[in-house]
Amino acid sequence: MSVIPPATPSAHAVPDSVLAELPAPAAPLVEAPAPPRRSAAEEARTLVADAKLGALASITADGDPWASMVTFADLDGEPVLCVSRLALHGRNLDADQRASLAVTAEVPPGADPSDHGRVTLAGHVVRPQGAERERAEAAYAEAIPSAGVFARFDDFTFWVLRVERVRWVGGFGRMASVTPPAYREAEPDPVGSFPAFAVSHLNEDHADALLAMARAVGGHPDATAASCLRADRYGLDLHVHTPRGEAEARVGFAAPARERDGLRAATVELTRRSRALLA
Amino acid sequence: MSVIPPATPSAHAVPDSVLAELPAPAAPLVEAPAPPRRSAAEEARTLVADAKLGALASITADGDPWASMVTFADLDGEPVLCVSRLALHGRNLDADQRASLAVTAEVPPGADPSDHGRVTLAGHVVRPQGAERERAEAAYAEAIPSAGVFARFDDFTFWVLRVERVRWVGGFGRMASVTPPAYREAEPDPVGSFPAFAVSHLNEDHADALLAMARAVGGHPDATAASCLRADRYGLDLHVHTPRGEAEARVGFAAPARERDGLRAATVELTRRSRALLA
Repeated sequence: MSVIPPATPSAHAVPDSVLAELPAPAAPLVEAPAPPRRSAAEEARTLVADAKLGALASITADGDPWASMVTFADLDGEPVLCVSRLALHGRNLDADQRASLAVTAEVPPGADPSDHGRVTLAGHVVRPQGAERERAEAAYAEAIPSAGVFARFDDFTFWVLRVERVRWVGGFGRMASVTPPAYREAEPDPVGSFPAFAVSHLNEDHADALLAMARAVGGHPDATAASCLRADRYGLDLHVHTPRGEAEARVGFAAPARERDGLRAATVELTRRSRALLA
Repeated sequence: MSVIPPATPSAHAVPDSVLAELPAPAAPLVEAPAPPRRSAAEEARTLVADAKLGALASITADGDPWASMVTFADLDGEPVLCVSRLALHGRNLDADQRASLAVTAEVPPGADPSDHGRVTLAGHVVRPQGAERERAEAAYAEAIPSAGVFARFDDFTFWVLRVERVRWVGGFGRMASVTPPAYREAEPDPVGSFPAFAVSHLNEDHADALLAMARAVGGHPDATAASCLRADRYGLDLHVHTPRGEAEARVGFAAPARERDGLRAATVELTRRSRALLA
Protein backbone atom coordinates (compact mmCIF):
# COMPACT_ATOMS: atom_id res chain seq x y z
CA MET A 1 0.00 0.00 0.00
CA SER A 2 1.59 3.27 -1.09
CA VAL A 3 0.43 6.84 -0.96
CA ILE A 4 -0.65 8.38 -4.24
CA PRO A 5 0.00 12.09 -4.50
CA PRO A 6 -3.12 14.20 -4.81
CA ALA A 7 -4.31 15.69 -8.08
CA THR A 8 -2.00 18.25 -9.61
CA PRO A 9 -2.82 20.19 -12.75
CA SER A 10 0.88 20.72 -13.42
CA ALA A 11 1.18 17.46 -15.38
CA HIS A 12 -1.14 18.96 -17.99
CA ALA A 13 -0.12 21.72 -20.38
CA VAL A 14 -2.30 24.40 -18.83
CA PRO A 15 -2.20 27.81 -20.54
CA ASP A 16 -1.66 30.72 -18.13
CA SER A 17 -5.07 32.11 -19.08
CA VAL A 18 -6.75 28.89 -17.91
CA LEU A 19 -4.52 28.55 -14.85
CA ALA A 20 -5.53 32.03 -13.72
CA GLU A 21 -9.17 30.92 -13.67
CA LEU A 22 -8.59 27.75 -11.65
CA PRO A 23 -9.16 28.24 -7.93
CA ALA A 24 -6.13 27.32 -5.84
CA PRO A 25 -7.07 24.67 -3.28
CA ALA A 26 -7.00 25.75 0.36
CA ALA A 27 -3.91 24.32 2.08
CA PRO A 28 -4.44 22.39 5.32
CA LEU A 29 -4.09 24.56 8.44
CA VAL A 30 -2.93 21.55 10.47
CA GLU A 31 -0.22 19.26 9.15
CA ALA A 32 -0.71 15.56 9.78
CA PRO A 33 0.76 12.34 8.38
CA ALA A 34 -1.08 11.41 5.19
CA PRO A 35 -3.65 8.71 6.01
CA PRO A 36 -3.26 5.51 4.01
CA ARG A 37 -5.20 4.97 0.79
CA ARG A 38 -5.43 2.20 -1.77
CA SER A 39 -2.33 1.74 -3.90
CA ALA A 40 -2.76 1.98 -7.66
CA ALA A 41 -2.38 -1.82 -7.78
CA GLU A 42 -5.21 -2.22 -5.25
CA GLU A 43 -7.35 0.23 -7.20
CA ALA A 44 -6.80 -1.74 -10.41
CA ARG A 45 -7.42 -5.13 -8.80
CA THR A 46 -10.57 -3.87 -7.09
CA LEU A 47 -12.01 -2.52 -10.34
CA VAL A 48 -11.47 -5.86 -12.06
CA ALA A 49 -12.81 -7.89 -9.11
CA ASP A 50 -15.94 -5.69 -8.97
CA ALA A 51 -16.97 -5.66 -12.63
CA LYS A 52 -18.66 -8.14 -14.92
CA LEU A 53 -18.84 -5.95 -18.02
CA GLY A 54 -15.74 -4.72 -19.79
CA ALA A 55 -14.66 -3.32 -23.12
CA LEU A 56 -12.42 -5.51 -25.24
CA ALA A 57 -9.99 -4.15 -27.81
CA SER A 58 -9.00 -6.73 -30.40
CA ILE A 59 -7.43 -6.61 -33.87
CA THR A 60 -9.43 -7.32 -37.04
CA ALA A 61 -8.13 -9.30 -40.01
CA ASP A 62 -7.23 -5.92 -41.58
CA GLY A 63 -5.15 -5.01 -38.54
CA ASP A 64 -7.68 -2.40 -37.39
CA PRO A 65 -8.70 -1.90 -33.75
CA TRP A 66 -12.12 -3.22 -32.74
CA ALA A 67 -13.91 -2.28 -29.53
CA SER A 68 -16.67 -4.50 -28.16
CA MET A 69 -18.49 -5.05 -24.91
CA VAL A 70 -17.89 -8.38 -23.15
CA THR A 71 -18.94 -9.98 -19.92
CA PHE A 72 -16.06 -11.42 -17.94
CA ALA A 73 -15.16 -13.12 -14.68
CA ASP A 74 -12.18 -12.33 -12.44
CA LEU A 75 -9.79 -15.24 -11.93
CA ASP A 76 -7.24 -13.84 -9.45
CA GLY A 77 -6.89 -10.71 -11.56
CA GLU A 78 -6.92 -12.44 -14.94
CA PRO A 79 -10.18 -11.80 -16.83
CA VAL A 80 -12.00 -14.87 -18.18
CA LEU A 81 -13.91 -14.26 -21.42
CA CYS A 82 -16.32 -16.52 -23.26
CA VAL A 83 -17.00 -15.27 -26.79
CA SER A 84 -18.59 -16.66 -29.93
CA ARG A 85 -16.72 -17.14 -33.17
CA LEU A 86 -19.91 -15.89 -34.84
CA ALA A 87 -19.05 -12.47 -33.39
CA LEU A 88 -16.25 -10.39 -34.89
CA HIS A 89 -14.34 -10.13 -31.59
CA GLY A 90 -14.35 -13.94 -31.36
CA ARG A 91 -12.91 -14.26 -34.85
CA ASN A 92 -10.38 -11.55 -34.04
CA LEU A 93 -9.10 -13.42 -30.95
CA ASP A 94 -8.96 -16.70 -32.87
CA ALA A 95 -6.58 -15.12 -35.38
CA ASP A 96 -4.63 -12.73 -33.13
CA GLN A 97 -4.44 -13.23 -29.39
CA ARG A 98 -3.35 -9.69 -28.51
CA ALA A 99 -6.09 -8.11 -26.44
CA SER A 100 -6.84 -5.33 -24.02
CA LEU A 101 -9.71 -4.96 -21.56
CA ALA A 102 -10.98 -1.69 -20.05
CA VAL A 103 -13.17 -1.74 -16.98
CA THR A 104 -14.91 1.14 -15.25
CA ALA A 105 -16.35 1.66 -11.80
CA GLU A 106 -20.05 2.24 -11.41
CA VAL A 107 -20.77 5.89 -12.27
CA PRO A 108 -23.69 7.24 -10.22
CA PRO A 109 -26.41 8.97 -12.28
CA GLY A 110 -25.46 12.57 -12.97
CA ALA A 111 -21.81 12.10 -11.95
CA ASP A 112 -18.95 12.96 -14.27
CA PRO A 113 -17.54 9.71 -15.70
CA SER A 114 -14.22 11.47 -16.29
CA ASP A 115 -13.80 11.65 -12.53
CA HIS A 116 -14.44 7.95 -11.85
CA GLY A 117 -12.13 4.98 -11.70
CA ARG A 118 -11.21 2.88 -14.71
CA VAL A 119 -8.41 0.52 -15.58
CA THR A 120 -6.91 -0.90 -18.75
CA LEU A 121 -5.33 -4.35 -18.82
CA ALA A 122 -3.42 -5.50 -21.89
CA GLY A 123 -1.67 -8.69 -22.92
CA HIS A 124 -2.50 -11.93 -24.69
CA VAL A 125 -5.47 -14.25 -24.35
CA VAL A 126 -4.86 -17.98 -23.99
CA ARG A 127 -7.19 -20.98 -24.00
CA PRO A 128 -7.03 -22.29 -20.44
CA GLN A 129 -6.17 -25.96 -20.09
CA GLY A 130 -6.73 -28.60 -17.43
CA ALA A 131 -7.30 -27.32 -13.91
CA GLU A 132 -7.13 -23.69 -15.05
CA ARG A 133 -9.89 -24.34 -17.56
CA GLU A 134 -12.09 -25.80 -14.82
CA ARG A 135 -11.44 -22.81 -12.56
CA ALA A 136 -12.03 -20.37 -15.44
CA GLU A 137 -15.34 -22.01 -16.39
CA ALA A 138 -16.48 -22.10 -12.77
CA ALA A 139 -15.60 -18.44 -12.22
CA TYR A 140 -17.44 -17.44 -15.40
CA ALA A 141 -20.52 -19.51 -14.55
CA GLU A 142 -20.70 -17.86 -11.13
CA ALA A 143 -20.27 -14.32 -12.51
CA ILE A 144 -22.55 -14.69 -15.56
CA PRO A 145 -25.52 -16.97 -14.84
CA SER A 146 -26.75 -17.01 -18.47
CA ALA A 147 -23.46 -18.70 -19.41
CA GLY A 148 -25.11 -21.89 -18.16
CA VAL A 149 -26.67 -22.00 -21.62
CA PHE A 150 -24.49 -20.12 -24.11
CA ALA A 151 -21.09 -21.23 -22.82
CA ARG A 152 -22.05 -24.74 -23.93
CA PHE A 153 -22.69 -23.73 -27.55
CA ASP A 154 -19.90 -25.05 -29.75
CA ASP A 155 -19.17 -21.63 -31.24
CA PHE A 156 -18.13 -20.20 -27.84
CA THR A 157 -14.53 -20.24 -26.64
CA PHE A 158 -13.13 -19.58 -23.17
CA TRP A 159 -10.15 -17.25 -23.03
CA VAL A 160 -8.03 -16.03 -20.13
CA LEU A 161 -6.20 -12.71 -20.48
CA ARG A 162 -2.55 -12.91 -19.41
CA VAL A 163 -1.97 -9.42 -18.06
CA GLU A 164 1.25 -7.80 -19.29
CA ARG A 165 0.39 -4.13 -18.82
CA VAL A 166 -1.87 -2.29 -16.34
CA ARG A 167 -2.83 1.37 -16.43
CA TRP A 168 -5.16 2.81 -13.77
CA VAL A 169 -6.98 6.14 -13.86
CA GLY A 170 -8.86 7.11 -10.70
CA GLY A 171 -10.30 10.39 -11.96
CA PHE A 172 -8.97 13.89 -12.49
CA GLY A 173 -5.25 13.87 -11.75
CA ARG A 174 -5.27 10.41 -10.16
CA MET A 175 -3.52 7.84 -12.36
CA ALA A 176 -0.61 5.42 -12.41
CA SER A 177 0.85 2.46 -14.21
CA VAL A 178 1.07 -0.74 -12.21
CA THR A 179 3.52 -3.60 -12.69
CA PRO A 180 1.86 -6.95 -13.45
CA PRO A 181 3.35 -8.58 -10.30
CA ALA A 182 2.06 -5.76 -8.07
CA TYR A 183 -1.34 -6.07 -9.75
CA ARG A 184 -1.49 -9.83 -9.20
CA GLU A 185 -0.43 -9.57 -5.56
CA ALA A 186 -2.82 -6.76 -4.63
CA GLU A 187 -5.88 -7.67 -2.61
CA PRO A 188 -9.23 -6.40 -3.96
CA ASP A 189 -10.87 -3.94 -1.58
CA PRO A 190 -13.81 -5.76 0.04
CA VAL A 191 -15.90 -2.57 0.09
CA GLY A 192 -15.73 -2.31 -3.71
CA SER A 193 -14.20 0.20 -6.10
CA PHE A 194 -16.83 2.89 -5.58
CA PRO A 195 -19.32 2.08 -2.79
CA ALA A 196 -21.96 4.41 -4.25
CA PHE A 197 -24.61 3.64 -1.64
CA ALA A 198 -22.30 4.38 1.29
CA VAL A 199 -21.09 7.63 -0.29
CA SER A 200 -24.60 8.91 -1.00
CA HIS A 201 -25.82 7.80 2.44
CA LEU A 202 -23.01 9.73 4.14
CA ASN A 203 -23.75 12.83 2.07
CA GLU A 204 -27.52 12.70 2.51
CA ASP A 205 -27.74 11.78 6.19
CA HIS A 206 -24.40 12.47 7.88
CA ALA A 207 -23.12 15.83 6.69
CA ASP A 208 -22.46 16.77 10.34
CA ALA A 209 -20.21 13.72 10.83
CA LEU A 210 -18.25 14.54 7.65
CA LEU A 211 -17.78 18.12 8.85
CA ALA A 212 -16.48 16.87 12.21
CA MET A 213 -13.97 14.64 10.39
CA ALA A 214 -12.78 17.51 8.19
CA ARG A 215 -12.28 19.76 11.23
CA ALA A 216 -10.77 17.22 13.62
CA VAL A 217 -8.55 15.01 11.47
CA GLY A 218 -8.78 16.47 7.94
CA GLY A 219 -6.44 19.41 8.54
CA HIS A 220 -9.15 22.07 8.19
CA PRO A 221 -10.33 23.12 11.69
CA ASP A 222 -12.17 26.08 10.14
CA ALA A 223 -14.19 23.93 7.71
CA THR A 224 -17.79 25.07 7.23
CA ALA A 225 -19.07 22.08 5.23
CA ALA A 226 -17.80 18.73 3.95
CA SER A 227 -19.04 16.05 1.58
CA CYS A 228 -17.72 12.58 0.73
CA LEU A 229 -16.15 12.13 -2.72
CA ARG A 230 -14.95 8.53 -2.42
CA ALA A 231 -14.77 5.78 0.18
CA ASP A 232 -12.51 2.76 0.44
CA ARG A 233 -11.39 0.29 3.09
CA TYR A 234 -8.77 2.71 4.45
CA GLY A 235 -10.80 5.92 4.72
CA LEU A 236 -12.70 8.69 2.97
CA ASP A 237 -11.86 11.46 0.51
CA LEU A 238 -13.70 14.62 1.49
CA HIS A 239 -14.50 17.81 -0.36
CA VAL A 240 -14.14 20.56 2.21
CA HIS A 241 -15.39 24.15 2.21
CA THR A 242 -13.46 26.68 4.30
CA PRO A 243 -13.48 30.50 4.47
CA ARG A 244 -10.08 30.24 2.73
CA GLY A 245 -11.45 28.30 -0.24
CA GLU A 246 -12.15 24.66 -1.08
CA ALA A 247 -9.95 21.63 -0.58
CA GLU A 248 -9.80 17.85 -0.80
CA ALA A 249 -8.94 16.11 2.45
CA ARG A 250 -8.17 12.50 3.26
CA VAL A 251 -9.41 11.06 6.56
CA GLY A 252 -8.32 7.59 7.63
CA PHE A 253 -10.05 4.79 9.53
CA ALA A 254 -8.56 3.39 12.74
CA ALA A 255 -8.35 0.01 10.98
CA PRO A 256 -9.10 -0.98 7.38
CA ALA A 257 -12.56 -2.37 6.68
CA ARG A 258 -12.32 -6.14 6.14
CA GLU A 259 -15.79 -6.88 4.77
CA ARG A 260 -18.13 -5.50 2.11
CA ASP A 261 -20.31 -3.82 4.76
CA GLY A 262 -17.36 -2.80 6.92
CA LEU A 263 -17.62 0.89 6.07
CA ARG A 264 -20.41 1.50 8.57
CA ALA A 265 -18.43 0.51 11.68
CA ALA A 266 -15.29 2.24 10.38
CA THR A 267 -17.08 5.55 9.74
CA VAL A 268 -18.89 5.39 13.10
CA GLU A 269 -15.51 5.02 14.86
CA LEU A 270 -14.02 7.86 12.80
CA THR A 271 -16.98 10.11 13.62
CA ARG A 272 -16.71 9.38 17.37
CA ARG A 273 -12.97 9.99 17.32
CA SER A 274 -13.43 13.28 15.43
CA ARG A 275 -16.13 14.51 17.79
CA ALA A 276 -14.04 13.58 20.84
CA LEU A 277 -11.13 15.62 19.46
CA LEU A 278 -13.42 18.61 18.91
CA ALA A 279 -15.14 18.39 22.31
CA MET B 1 -37.55 1.13 -40.34
CA SER B 2 -37.26 -2.60 -40.90
CA VAL B 3 -38.40 -5.58 -38.90
CA ILE B 4 -35.69 -7.53 -37.14
CA PRO B 5 -36.34 -11.26 -36.87
CA PRO B 6 -36.71 -12.50 -33.32
CA ALA B 7 -34.01 -14.41 -31.51
CA THR B 8 -33.11 -17.75 -33.01
CA PRO B 9 -30.65 -20.15 -31.42
CA SER B 10 -30.03 -21.74 -34.81
CA ALA B 11 -27.28 -19.26 -35.70
CA HIS B 12 -25.23 -20.72 -32.87
CA ALA B 13 -23.63 -24.15 -32.93
CA VAL B 14 -25.88 -25.71 -30.32
CA PRO B 15 -25.11 -29.34 -29.40
CA ASP B 16 -28.18 -31.59 -29.41
CA SER B 17 -27.72 -32.22 -25.69
CA VAL B 18 -28.06 -28.48 -25.01
CA LEU B 19 -30.86 -28.01 -27.53
CA ALA B 20 -32.90 -30.71 -25.79
CA GLU B 21 -32.77 -28.69 -22.57
CA LEU B 22 -33.85 -25.39 -24.13
CA PRO B 23 -37.60 -24.78 -23.83
CA ALA B 24 -39.27 -24.20 -27.21
CA PRO B 25 -41.10 -20.86 -27.21
CA ALA B 26 -44.90 -20.99 -27.37
CA ALA B 27 -46.08 -20.01 -30.87
CA PRO B 28 -48.72 -17.25 -31.12
CA LEU B 29 -52.30 -18.56 -31.25
CA VAL B 30 -53.42 -15.55 -33.26
CA GLU B 31 -51.45 -14.45 -36.31
CA ALA B 32 -51.13 -10.71 -36.82
CA PRO B 33 -48.88 -8.41 -38.87
CA ALA B 34 -45.64 -7.87 -36.97
CA PRO B 35 -45.78 -4.49 -35.22
CA PRO B 36 -42.98 -2.10 -36.17
CA ARG B 37 -39.82 -1.89 -34.12
CA ARG B 38 -36.61 0.10 -34.33
CA SER B 39 -34.36 -0.81 -37.23
CA ALA B 40 -30.80 -1.87 -36.40
CA ALA B 41 -29.69 1.55 -37.69
CA GLU B 42 -32.09 3.29 -35.31
CA GLU B 43 -30.89 1.08 -32.44
CA ALA B 44 -27.28 1.97 -33.16
CA ARG B 45 -27.96 5.70 -33.55
CA THR B 46 -30.03 5.76 -30.35
CA LEU B 47 -27.28 4.06 -28.33
CA VAL B 48 -24.73 6.63 -29.50
CA ALA B 49 -27.08 9.58 -28.98
CA ASP B 50 -27.87 8.38 -25.43
CA ALA B 51 -24.38 7.71 -24.10
CA LYS B 52 -21.57 9.92 -22.87
CA LEU B 53 -19.14 7.16 -21.88
CA GLY B 54 -17.68 4.74 -24.40
CA ALA B 55 -14.79 2.34 -24.80
CA LEU B 56 -12.12 3.30 -27.29
CA ALA B 57 -9.93 0.76 -29.07
CA SER B 58 -6.74 2.28 -30.43
CA ILE B 59 -3.38 0.92 -31.58
CA THR B 60 -0.18 1.34 -29.55
CA ALA B 61 3.23 2.11 -31.01
CA ASP B 62 3.89 -1.65 -30.90
CA GLY B 63 0.78 -2.34 -32.97
CA ASP B 64 -1.08 -3.80 -29.99
CA PRO B 65 -4.75 -3.12 -29.23
CA TRP B 66 -5.46 -0.75 -26.34
CA ALA B 67 -8.86 -0.37 -24.68
CA SER B 68 -9.68 2.75 -22.68
CA MET B 69 -12.72 4.52 -21.37
CA VAL B 70 -13.53 7.91 -22.92
CA THR B 71 -16.26 10.47 -22.59
CA PHE B 72 -17.72 11.57 -25.90
CA ALA B 73 -20.41 13.71 -27.49
CA ASP B 74 -22.68 12.75 -30.36
CA LEU B 75 -22.36 14.98 -33.44
CA ASP B 76 -25.04 13.63 -35.80
CA GLY B 77 -23.82 10.08 -35.16
CA GLU B 78 -20.11 10.87 -35.25
CA PRO B 79 -18.55 10.66 -31.77
CA VAL B 80 -16.49 13.66 -30.65
CA LEU B 81 -13.57 12.80 -28.35
CA CYS B 82 -11.27 15.08 -26.40
CA VAL B 83 -8.22 13.22 -25.13
CA SER B 84 -4.85 14.17 -23.65
CA ARG B 85 -1.54 13.34 -25.28
CA LEU B 86 -0.34 12.59 -21.75
CA ALA B 87 -2.61 9.53 -21.87
CA LEU B 88 -1.64 6.49 -23.92
CA HIS B 89 -4.84 6.56 -25.99
CA GLY B 90 -4.08 10.18 -26.93
CA ARG B 91 -0.57 9.26 -28.09
CA ASN B 92 -2.01 6.26 -29.94
CA LEU B 93 -4.46 8.42 -31.92
CA ASP B 94 -1.76 10.98 -32.68
CA ALA B 95 0.32 8.27 -34.34
CA ASP B 96 -2.43 6.09 -35.87
CA GLN B 97 -5.91 7.43 -36.51
CA ARG B 98 -7.64 4.05 -36.78
CA ALA B 99 -10.12 3.78 -33.93
CA SER B 100 -13.21 1.97 -32.75
CA LEU B 101 -15.75 2.99 -30.11
CA ALA B 102 -18.08 0.64 -28.23
CA VAL B 103 -21.10 1.99 -26.40
CA THR B 104 -23.55 0.18 -24.18
CA ALA B 105 -27.06 0.92 -22.98
CA GLU B 106 -27.70 1.43 -19.29
CA VAL B 107 -27.83 -1.99 -17.64
CA PRO B 108 -30.25 -2.00 -14.67
CA PRO B 109 -28.79 -3.41 -11.42
CA GLY B 110 -29.04 -7.19 -11.42
CA ALA B 111 -29.80 -7.44 -15.15
CA ASP B 112 -27.70 -9.57 -17.49
CA PRO B 113 -25.43 -7.25 -19.49
CA SER B 114 -25.24 -9.91 -22.23
CA ASP B 115 -28.92 -9.24 -22.93
CA HIS B 116 -28.61 -5.47 -23.28
CA GLY B 117 -27.93 -3.25 -26.25
CA ARG B 118 -24.48 -2.25 -27.36
CA VAL B 119 -22.92 -1.00 -30.56
CA THR B 120 -19.45 -0.83 -32.07
CA LEU B 121 -18.43 1.94 -34.44
CA ALA B 122 -15.13 1.76 -36.29
CA GLY B 123 -13.27 4.04 -38.67
CA HIS B 124 -10.73 6.86 -38.49
CA VAL B 125 -10.53 9.87 -36.23
CA VAL B 126 -9.88 13.28 -37.76
CA ARG B 127 -9.16 16.69 -36.21
CA PRO B 128 -12.24 18.76 -37.04
CA GLN B 129 -11.60 22.07 -38.80
CA GLY B 130 -13.49 25.32 -39.14
CA ALA B 131 -17.24 25.12 -38.60
CA GLU B 132 -17.07 21.41 -37.77
CA ARG B 133 -14.56 22.12 -35.03
CA GLU B 134 -16.87 24.72 -33.53
CA ARG B 135 -19.81 22.32 -33.63
CA ALA B 136 -17.70 19.48 -32.19
CA GLU B 137 -16.44 21.64 -29.31
CA ALA B 138 -19.94 22.92 -28.58
CA ALA B 139 -21.39 19.39 -28.58
CA TYR B 140 -18.64 18.15 -26.27
CA ALA B 141 -19.00 21.11 -23.89
CA GLU B 142 -22.73 20.45 -23.63
CA ALA B 143 -22.32 16.69 -23.05
CA ILE B 144 -19.34 16.89 -20.65
CA PRO B 145 -19.51 19.97 -18.41
CA SER B 146 -16.04 19.43 -16.92
CA ALA B 147 -14.61 19.91 -20.42
CA GLY B 148 -15.02 23.63 -19.74
CA VAL B 149 -11.68 23.30 -17.94
CA PHE B 150 -9.73 20.36 -19.35
CA ALA B 151 -10.60 20.82 -23.02
CA ARG B 152 -8.61 24.07 -22.85
CA PHE B 153 -5.41 22.41 -21.65
CA ASP B 154 -2.87 22.37 -24.49
CA ASP B 155 -2.31 18.62 -24.20
CA PHE B 156 -5.93 17.85 -25.16
CA THR B 157 -6.99 17.26 -28.74
CA PHE B 158 -10.47 17.14 -30.24
CA TRP B 159 -11.13 14.22 -32.56
CA VAL B 160 -14.21 13.23 -34.58
CA LEU B 161 -14.68 9.57 -35.50
CA ARG B 162 -15.54 9.09 -39.17
CA VAL B 163 -17.76 6.00 -38.99
CA GLU B 164 -16.92 3.36 -41.59
CA ARG B 165 -18.35 0.27 -39.90
CA VAL B 166 -21.28 -0.26 -37.51
CA ARG B 167 -22.19 -3.44 -35.66
CA TRP B 168 -25.17 -3.51 -33.33
CA VAL B 169 -26.02 -6.19 -30.73
CA GLY B 170 -29.36 -5.83 -28.98
CA GLY B 171 -29.06 -8.84 -26.68
CA PHE B 172 -29.43 -12.58 -27.06
CA GLY B 173 -30.03 -13.33 -30.73
CA ARG B 174 -30.66 -9.70 -31.70
CA MET B 175 -27.83 -8.29 -33.80
CA ALA B 176 -27.07 -6.82 -37.19
CA SER B 177 -24.51 -4.87 -39.16
CA VAL B 178 -25.60 -1.45 -40.35
CA THR B 179 -24.32 0.47 -43.36
CA PRO B 180 -22.76 3.85 -42.51
CA PRO B 181 -25.32 5.76 -44.65
CA ALA B 182 -28.24 4.00 -42.92
CA TYR B 183 -26.63 4.77 -39.56
CA ARG B 184 -26.17 8.45 -40.37
CA GLU B 185 -29.72 8.82 -41.66
CA ALA B 186 -31.43 7.05 -38.77
CA GLU B 187 -33.22 9.21 -36.21
CA PRO B 188 -32.34 8.55 -32.55
CA ASP B 189 -35.32 7.27 -30.57
CA PRO B 190 -36.48 10.13 -28.33
CA VAL B 191 -37.41 7.70 -25.54
CA GLY B 192 -33.81 6.48 -25.29
CA SER B 193 -32.13 3.15 -25.94
CA PHE B 194 -33.42 1.43 -22.79
CA PRO B 195 -35.95 3.52 -20.85
CA ALA B 196 -35.24 1.67 -17.59
CA PHE B 197 -37.61 3.72 -15.46
CA ALA B 198 -40.59 3.14 -17.79
CA VAL B 199 -39.88 -0.60 -18.04
CA SER B 200 -39.63 -1.07 -14.27
CA HIS B 201 -42.70 1.14 -13.67
CA LEU B 202 -44.77 -0.96 -16.10
CA ASN B 203 -43.61 -4.18 -14.43
CA GLU B 204 -44.10 -2.96 -10.86
CA ASP B 205 -47.41 -1.13 -11.21
CA HIS B 206 -49.13 -2.20 -14.43
CA ALA B 207 -48.85 -5.99 -14.75
CA ASP B 208 -52.60 -6.12 -15.51
CA ALA B 209 -52.19 -3.74 -18.45
CA LEU B 210 -49.30 -5.80 -19.85
CA LEU B 211 -51.39 -8.97 -19.57
CA ALA B 212 -54.25 -7.29 -21.44
CA MET B 213 -51.84 -6.31 -24.23
CA ALA B 214 -50.45 -9.84 -24.48
CA ARG B 215 -53.97 -11.30 -24.72
CA ALA B 216 -55.56 -8.72 -27.01
CA VAL B 217 -52.83 -7.77 -29.48
CA GLY B 218 -49.83 -9.95 -28.59
CA GLY B 219 -51.10 -13.14 -30.20
CA HIS B 220 -51.53 -15.03 -26.91
CA PRO B 221 -55.23 -14.84 -25.84
CA ASP B 222 -54.55 -17.53 -23.20
CA ALA B 223 -51.71 -15.61 -21.53
CA THR B 224 -51.66 -15.86 -17.74
CA ALA B 225 -48.96 -13.24 -17.03
CA ALA B 226 -46.81 -10.78 -18.93
CA SER B 227 -43.86 -8.52 -18.16
CA CYS B 228 -42.09 -5.83 -20.18
CA LEU B 229 -38.61 -6.66 -21.48
CA ARG B 230 -37.92 -3.55 -23.55
CA ALA B 231 -39.68 -0.37 -24.62
CA ASP B 232 -39.08 1.94 -27.55
CA ARG B 233 -40.93 4.63 -29.48
CA TYR B 234 -42.83 2.03 -31.55
CA GLY B 235 -44.00 -0.38 -28.85
CA LEU B 236 -43.09 -2.91 -26.19
CA ASP B 237 -41.43 -6.34 -26.11
CA LEU B 238 -43.26 -8.58 -23.66
CA HIS B 239 -42.32 -11.81 -21.94
CA VAL B 240 -45.53 -13.85 -21.88
CA HIS B 241 -46.49 -16.87 -19.79
CA THR B 242 -49.11 -19.21 -21.27
CA PRO B 243 -50.30 -22.73 -20.36
CA ARG B 244 -48.44 -23.79 -23.53
CA GLY B 245 -45.11 -22.35 -22.39
CA GLU B 246 -43.36 -18.98 -22.51
CA ALA B 247 -42.98 -16.59 -25.40
CA GLU B 248 -41.79 -13.16 -26.43
CA ALA B 249 -44.45 -10.95 -28.00
CA ARG B 250 -44.25 -7.57 -29.67
CA VAL B 251 -47.07 -5.07 -29.12
CA GLY B 252 -47.18 -1.83 -31.12
CA PHE B 253 -48.30 1.69 -30.29
CA ALA B 254 -50.99 3.43 -32.38
CA ALA B 255 -48.39 6.09 -33.23
CA PRO B 256 -44.69 6.31 -32.39
CA ALA B 257 -43.72 8.31 -29.32
CA ARG B 258 -42.20 11.62 -30.41
CA GLU B 259 -40.78 12.88 -27.12
CA ARG B 260 -38.64 11.55 -24.29
CA ASP B 261 -41.69 11.19 -22.02
CA GLY B 262 -43.98 10.01 -24.82
CA LEU B 263 -44.14 6.40 -23.58
CA ARG B 264 -46.78 7.17 -20.98
CA ALA B 265 -49.47 8.37 -23.43
CA ALA B 266 -48.60 5.61 -25.92
CA THR B 267 -48.90 2.82 -23.34
CA VAL B 268 -52.13 4.28 -21.94
CA GLU B 269 -53.63 4.20 -25.46
CA LEU B 270 -52.37 0.66 -26.03
CA THR B 271 -53.85 -0.48 -22.70
CA ARG B 272 -57.26 1.07 -23.47
CA ARG B 273 -57.26 -0.47 -26.95
CA SER B 274 -56.32 -3.89 -25.55
CA ARG B 275 -59.00 -3.77 -22.85
CA ALA B 276 -61.63 -2.68 -25.39
CA LEU B 277 -60.75 -5.66 -27.59
CA LEU B 278 -61.09 -8.01 -24.60
CA ALA B 279 -64.37 -6.49 -23.34
